[in-house]
Amino acid sequence: MLEKLKEEVFKANLDLVSHGLVILTFGNASAIDRSSNLVVIKPSGVPYATMKPDDMVVIDMNGVVVEGFLNPSTDAPSHVAIYKSLGAVGGIVHTHSTYATAWAQAGMAIPCLGTTHADHFHGSVPVTRSLTLAETENDYEYNTGLVIAEAAGSSDPLAVPAVLVRSHGPFTWGETASGAVINAVVLEEVARMAAITASLAPVKEIDRVLLDKHFLRKHGKSSYYGQNK
Amino acid sequence: MLEKLKEEVFKANLDLVSHGLVILTFGNASAIDRSSNLVVIKPSGVPYATMKPDDMVVIDMNGVVVEGFLNPSTDAPSHVAIYKSLGAVGGIVHTHSTYATAWAQAGMAIPCLGTTHADHFHGSVPVTRSLTLAETENDYEYNTGLVIAEAAGSSDPLAVPAVLVRSHGPFTWGETASGAVINAVVLEEVARMAAITASLAPVKEIDRVLLDKHFLRKHGKSSYYGQNK
Amino acid sequence: MLEKLKEEVFKANLDLVSHGLVILTFGNASAIDRSSNLVVIKPSGVPYATMKPDDMVVIDMNGVVVEGFLNPSTDAPSHVAIYKSLGAVGGIVHTHSTYATAWAQAGMAIPCLGTTHADHFHGSVPVTRSLTLAETENDYEYNTGLVIAEAAGSSDPLAVPAVLVRSHGPFTWGETASGAVINAVVLEEVARMAAITASLAPVKEIDRVLLDKHFLRKHGKSSYYGQNK
Amino acid sequence: MLEKLKEEVFKANLDLVSHGLVILTFGNASAIDRSSNLVVIKPSGVPYATMKPDDMVVIDMNGVVVEGFLNPSTDAPSHVAIYKSLGAVGGIVHTHSTYATAWAQAGMAIPCLGTTHADHFHGSVPVTRSLTLAETENDYEYNTGLVIAEAAGSSDPLAVPAVLVRSHGPFTWGETASGAVINAVVLEEVARMAAITASLAPVKEIDRVLLDKHFLRKHGKSSYYGQNK
Repeated sequence: MLEKLKEEVFKANLDLVSHGLVILTFGNASAIDRSSNLVVIKPSGVPYATMKPDDMVVIDMNGVVVEGFLNPSTDAPSHVAIYKSLGAVGGIVHTHSTYATAWAQAGMAIPCLGTTHADHFHGSVPVTRSLTLAETENDYEYNTGLVIAEAAGSSDPLAVPAVLVRSHGPFTWGETASGAVINAVVLEEVARMAAITASLAPVKEIDRVLLDKHFLRKHGKSSYYGQNK
Repeated sequence: MLEKLKEEVFKANLDLVSHGLVILTFGNASAIDRSSNLVVIKPSGVPYATMKPDDMVVIDMNGVVVEGFLNPSTDAPSHVAIYKSLGAVGGIVHTHSTYATAWAQAGMAIPCLGTTHADHFHGSVPVTRSLTLAETENDYEYNTGLVIAEAAGSSDPLAVPAVLVRSHGPFTWGETASGAVINAVVLEEVARMAAITASLAPVKEIDRVLLDKHFLRKHGKSSYYGQNK
Repeated sequence: MLEKLKEEVFKANLDLVSHGLVILTFGNASAIDRSSNLVVIKPSGVPYATMKPDDMVVIDMNGVVVEGFLNPSTDAPSHVAIYKSLGAVGGIVHTHSTYATAWAQAGMAIPCLGTTHADHFHGSVPVTRSLTLAETENDYEYNTGLVIAEAAGSSDPLAVPAVLVRSHGPFTWGETASGAVINAVVLEEVARMAAITASLAPVKEIDRVLLDKHFLRKHGKSSYYGQNK
Repeated sequence: MLEKLKEEVFKANLDLVSHGLVILTFGNASAIDRSSNLVVIKPSGVPYATMKPDDMVVIDMNGVVVEGFLNPSTDAPSHVAIYKSLGAVGGIVHTHSTYATAWAQAGMAIPCLGTTHADHFHGSVPVTRSLTLAETENDYEYNTGLVIAEAAGSSDPLAVPAVLVRSHGPFTWGETASGAVINAVVLEEVARMAAITASLAPVKEIDRVLLDKHFLRKHGKSSYYGQNK
């Protein structure tokens, strides 16, 4: 079932490697089929070099395996919680990419310091609160997804399609798994630029008008970037 | 029309990728044919992997498409404004290369700290002022080109063939598109060296005599670098 | 003798190069056969490009060559001292990887700042004390191994399978040589993330509960990461 | 003439590119034939991709071209001055490698902070004084070589086979051109490690005893690193 989605999720996982965002078996990508409410996700701890599309695991919204011979990613409950909370999300990526993780470890949101950021994220990339003792000890991964949704807030999740989990690392999303991968690539680059900028001078967030200009020329009704569809 | 120039601009755009200056569809290169006042520029948002020379778009000095099936780069009006303002410029490159963008985000000119810089840029690389509210809201891209020309000043634009757009990123130029690419490569390296230097000690600009020595041994009438033409 | 172990050690040494952890002839990997108390180790100063499995040297627990035509790594006595002191160790890797070495040169343990670290190291990665004058002048390499074991302490050496030698660089280990390589890869990444984090904000160690959660979901009896064995 | 030396110098120049030490046409390598007092050096401004062994230029100790159709490197007089001043030197490399250049731009010697440094350089890597106005205006490149020799001092130039030219970049040397390349590779890595170390804590130079131990176990009469010759 969901063979096409498995291919997409498989490719998204490999793209994380080729973009230099994950090493070893760090990181995972998933996608949801909203009509059946089934999620396709990377298996846990399988090397990227030998992974096949058929190794992708299909789970339901309770995290129960519906199809597949392998255990799903340990982070599967985080993905499920995000899909439940943020209805516009079609694909999710989790990495430990270096600079985004450094901001997460510093417990700091990534401020919007320039148009590279503004072209893709309509404001700063938030960082979650710490999980409570109880949230860590029980249903840790599901609770991680919940604090991500909490940090994303109630506005359009595709406007700022990323959250840093405090002391952990980034989650990004998009309408599809490949969209989530692109946001993960841009997030890491934006995190790197922001760290270097902060080493040169006290950071100063971009003007709101310029932020809107750049985000809205690429996204939404009045966008004029790219080719006509 | 302008098939040779299309090939050059096409190659310049791909070289930005191979030099590691752009990811995804960030960045664009153009060239002008001064005899016809026509500009050849990259199409907007087309992946580098599938782009062909024939996809290059020909526009006139009002930004109107003269030939081509695709939309020109969103930044096309910036290129046009620079070609209009700086008559010696034959090719332009815009990237979001990491370190040059960090200096732009810090709102700081890149000081000339050594001979690597002085070999290619005859002084510090300026940063533009912020655009006004009106300049951002109307004709944003064209106004971006104008503040670039303003920052370049009235002296020879080939002496310092680069400007950082504040909160945005670098534009470089040259007599040709490939010359602009080389200046973009050197600018990124110089920006990186300067950031690392600044992390080691308070920066101290190079002596003016040494700056002149290095720039003039490679450029102008008394140059003695390279082979006889 | 020990042909299979030689293959493993040979491959571990090459993997250090492909993971970007060693340049030139820096670095070495070894493994021990606990049944015979024989150690297989890289020869000294042999280029990786021309090295063969048969070039691996077999030494006993006194560092005496039992089989092989080449001199063993100069650091062989350090490996022997670790194998003697830490009975659970089956493979050892020594590199001068950039960021781990920087922490060693700073004389600082690498604090556990996030889950990337906690997934692999159950606490901060310690740094050795300086060797005394006498320890440096006589049996320097063997004494280096002893201060490594001293810094590792008396708890399970596989819980924090790495030590930084002060003013020198990292040693990592594992149940096998390939396990030691993986720990060397993760250590360098964790060292890099920690250095960048420290550049953004004063470092704050991860909560103990979160540290335990991440380490124990991947290691030990209650682990639930990866596939069923 | 000197065909074998041309091959060596050609290969050394290409190795600078493959080791990531030079971009564009930055950098140059040379070697001297002490029996004839002739120097083989890279031509000026020739792209590495199309360069051939026969393009290497032979010059005498006055910098006059003895064989070759191309202009020698603009930095040829610096090489000649070093060969004249430092009799033990057989090959020289000049790069603008990023981190070594940053230290040169900061006007700081690279302190010996660890054994990676001590394995190859028997103490800190010195930085030259600034050239005087007269030294810059007349015979600039030759005078650059002279201040390099001045900074190297009167002790064995192979003990610390590198100098940083202030506001410029590194020169390294060795008994051969390929030895100079290896020293350039290690210098850049050591410069990078030292910059990262300095970002973590106030730098503290390595103990003299440990410095001697590491340098002397690889160099000189009592060395015991590598294989028997």
